[in-house]
Amino acid sequence: MDEGFASLPSPPYYAVIFSSRRNGEDEAGYAAAAQRMAELAAQQRGYLGAESSRDAGGFGITVSYWQDEAAILAWKHQAEHAVTRAHGRQYWYEHYELRVAKVERAYGGKGGVRK
Amino acid sequence: MDEGFASLPSPPYYAVIFSSRRNGEDEAGYAAAAQRMAELAAQQRGYLGAESSRDAGGFGITVSYWQDEAAILAWKHQAEHAVTRAHGRQYWYEHYELRVAKVERAYGGKGGVRK
Repeated sequence: MDEGFASLPSPPYYAVIFSSRRNGEDEAGYAAAAQRMAELAAQQRGYLGAESSRDAGGFGITVSYWQDEAAILAWKHQAEHAVTRAHGRQYWYEHYELRVAKVERAYGGKGGVRK
Repeated sequence: MDEGFASLPSPPYYAVIFSSRRNGEDEAGYAAAAQRMAELAAQQRGYLGAESSRDAGGFGITVSYWQDEAAILAWKHQAEHAVTRAHGRQYWYEHYELRVAKVERAYGGKGGVRK
């Protein structure tokens, strides 16, 4: 698998698109929590994968992929995740947006000149 | 509107999730084309907004939002976009993934400690 990309089954499946701007505070605490949440999410039933990017200005997008809506709700209510999410809203983000979407089709490819 | 965030209507609407890793080549050409494509997309019927992030390692996620599937298809077939997309696949990306999804619900918020 190419680094950074989620290896996903064929659609349909669900995406949770989380956009956020960091406030620049508590980078060590944030990084540790982000890693812990990624590990914990990966243990959830119905977790398919995730992709994440954050630019130098602190604006980031994380998309996590799930088998179905029940898996998303179970992750939302997972106790440690709920506590960390509440902490993040208070201390780590200037602003965030979360969108839940059903992926209907997908394509991908390698770059490079084809001979 | 907070910088970087798309200001969107209430769901349902569609998301095109484009994940990519840049190959590090032709940064000036890529940046100019990315800006031109963002401007051109914003002129399309049914365009709702977009959010984008690329990290220091060249992994990026751009999510563009559209009113319906017809708007996504029209953008896909827009002539200048099609030419630029083919160029990008050959010269700018190591790898890319594109997923089309229907956004079913959305939430957002401001960070900061609530008194």
